[in-house]
Amino acid sequence: MSKFIRASIQKMNGYSWGEQPGKIDNLIKLNTNENAYPASPEVTTALDNLNLEDLRTYPAPLADELRAEIAHIHGISLENIVLTNGGDEGLRLAMTTFVNPGDSFCFAHPSYSLYPVLAHIQDAMICPIPYSDSWEIPNQFASKISSYDAKLTCLVNPHAPSGTLYTVSEISKLADHIPGVLLIDEAYADFVDPELNYQSASLLENHDNILILRSFSKGYSLAGLRLGYLLGSNPLITPILNKTRDSYNVGSIQQKIGIAAITDQDYAQSIWSRIRDNRTHLQKQLNALGLTSPPSQSNFLLAHVNEDFGLTAKKLYQSLKKMDIYVRYFDDTYLKDHLRITVGTQEQNTALINAIEQVLHV
Amino acid sequence: MSKFIRASIQKMNGYSWGEQPGKIDNLIKLNTNENAYPASPEVTTALDNLNLEDLRTYPAPLADELRAEIAHIHGISLENIVLTNGGDEGLRLAMTTFVNPGDSFCFAHPSYSLYPVLAHIQDAMICPIPYSDSWEIPNQFASKISSYDAKLTCLVNPHAPSGTLYTVSEISKLADHIPGVLLIDEAYADFVDPELNYQSASLLENHDNILILRSFSKGYSLAGLRLGYLLGSNPLITPILNKTRDSYNVGSIQQKIGIAAITDQDYAQSIWSRIRDNRTHLQKQLNALGLTSPPSQSNFLLAHVNEDFGLTAKKLYQSLKKMDIYVRYFDDTYLKDHLRITVGTQEQNTALINAIEQVLHV
Repeated sequence: MSKFIRASIQKMNGYSWGEQPGKIDNLIKLNTNENAYPASPEVTTALDNLNLEDLRTYPAPLADELRAEIAHIHGISLENIVLTNGGDEGLRLAMTTFVNPGDSFCFAHPSYSLYPVLAHIQDAMICPIPYSDSWEIPNQFASKISSYDAKLTCLVNPHAPSGTLYTVSEISKLADHIPGVLLIDEAYADFVDPELNYQSASLLENHDNILILRSFSKGYSLAGLRLGYLLGSNPLITPILNKTRDSYNVGSIQQKIGIAAITDQDYAQSIWSRIRDNRTHLQKQLNALGLTSPPSQSNFLLAHVNEDFGLTAKKLYQSLKKMDIYVRYFDDTYLKDHLRITVGTQEQNTALINAIEQVLHV
Repeated sequence: MSKFIRASIQKMNGYSWGEQPGKIDNLIKLNTNENAYPASPEVTTALDNLNLEDLRTYPAPLADELRAEIAHIHGISLENIVLTNGGDEGLRLAMTTFVNPGDSFCFAHPSYSLYPVLAHIQDAMICPIPYSDSWEIPNQFASKISSYDAKLTCLVNPHAPSGTLYTVSEISKLADHIPGVLLIDEAYADFVDPELNYQSASLLENHDNILILRSFSKGYSLAGLRLGYLLGSNPLITPILNKTRDSYNVGSIQQKIGIAAITDQDYAQSIWSRIRDNRTHLQKQLNALGLTSPPSQSNFLLAHVNEDFGLTAKKLYQSLKKMDIYVRYFDDTYLKDHLRITVGTQEQNTALINAIEQVLHV
């Protein structure tokens, strides 16, 4: 390691992304929570309309046209929105803007494994607060966050990797009782059943310490594009927009594709509905095989591979991989008995179930 | 300002980007150094081949295919390259990876006004080292950098906003005599006259403290895409690749378009040559009007608006703007008598000269 690298960077581990195998024929990729269905046909039209002149010049620095569409969808104002190069950039920008080196950063553990990586880079104190077995918000979460005096707390909702949804009133209560900023990481919120009426943007009206992170990666089938956004009160968003983000952090193509995707709500809602249907069906089928999972409001299920199953989670993951079916195994104390399985198309889910049956019968 | 914002972020000023006016008919935009000519026809083909499946899944996390093409162009290895979301991200990543809060960061002033902004965000000590009048590397630059014990120094080459080129041997000597990392910001290096044989990548063989920043924005006419890369020794590049960059910082479309652009070297070289021709001609014409500029190896000229010219630089900038011709005026002690003018197409340059004549005759 070069002497030029900061000591804290030398010591830390980087983020381990899920396997991204190259082109494999008939690959069934259920390991990184990509949307099983493609983006809207409007995105195809937008791709067809791209031209060299759009690329020759710098992008609109504030992406106002896309921000206006997002504002419309959420019923908020333009100045409550900042676009990011994928949701990950939103997380990094929150760290950069609100957490001084040495300050505390909290999150419920386990959740997105990028959180501690970003905190390490910022030289923050990393304060994970463990879940109980039930994946509810940890006991005395607010008082623990307060005892650390955390400047930033991240909560994934619906939670990853369990899929559990916390209610708007639970979040509101949490935000009321902590000293710093609460970032609700809603990477998977598009898959929440509309009957649950989960409307978190309403929280912004009464909380000056809430940030909501959204992503086009999952809900809009655009993981390859890198596009996300933060919602928050004007005083939280403005310094990110004008100071801490890179000045042209979101390119022209990202802005155009984003507009095409988010304005076709009919299409988006139709695929979210299909994924919810597939999720219900897959959960039942996995359950019938002895692989139970918590109720999920996301596009994945956290299957518990218990002692009676016949083989370990790791072994099941490896067996499926040999059959070109990728699911996510975490080499982690909390999660080693689990597999996180992205909800696929009906055909993919059937192939997965058949493969698990085959593995069990060997 | 919210109490949640870090004190150092509250105090600092953000980056002021050049004006990006919306669509104006017959606009002549010579203020942000975009390439006057469009990207390669191969980019059009790549745009035509984009599809929803590329966007549905995550991008190749290390962008190996594009890195291989870049390695080929520069005659270096894959592991000496990390791609970034525009050159600006490369600058930020260098700051994040090599400069601890409180450490010193040096640069020759004036240059890219983003440098101190990034240093502020990292809580670094900002140590600008002033140019003399001649735009040569500042006197005793290395010893001043050493006296600050700078962990990172940025040098734009060709320099912006003057266009001056420093030689490989000058850079080599500088790197040998400073304590930290030297980042050569080559955003404009594609426009250097090939007869000067400026081959900076050769510096990497004998220097473990040099980073070279390249951008697709100017040379490849892709400012709207956001794509750049850093070259450096393996020990400098690896922690950026695996730890400090966002894991999917460059999207699938950026990677595909980047490959299309960089592999069409014939086209790229043809437009660089045209810009050099236009630059020579424009410089002569401006000179004839009394607007002298240093020899430029970039795609812009720094025109000196001296006391005898008849109106101030600011006034000339404003007059041209009224005629829908945008050039860059810096409200800065060093630069207030100058305008930075991007080299346009022949037609644009002629229109600029005509407009200046018109302003002078009023």
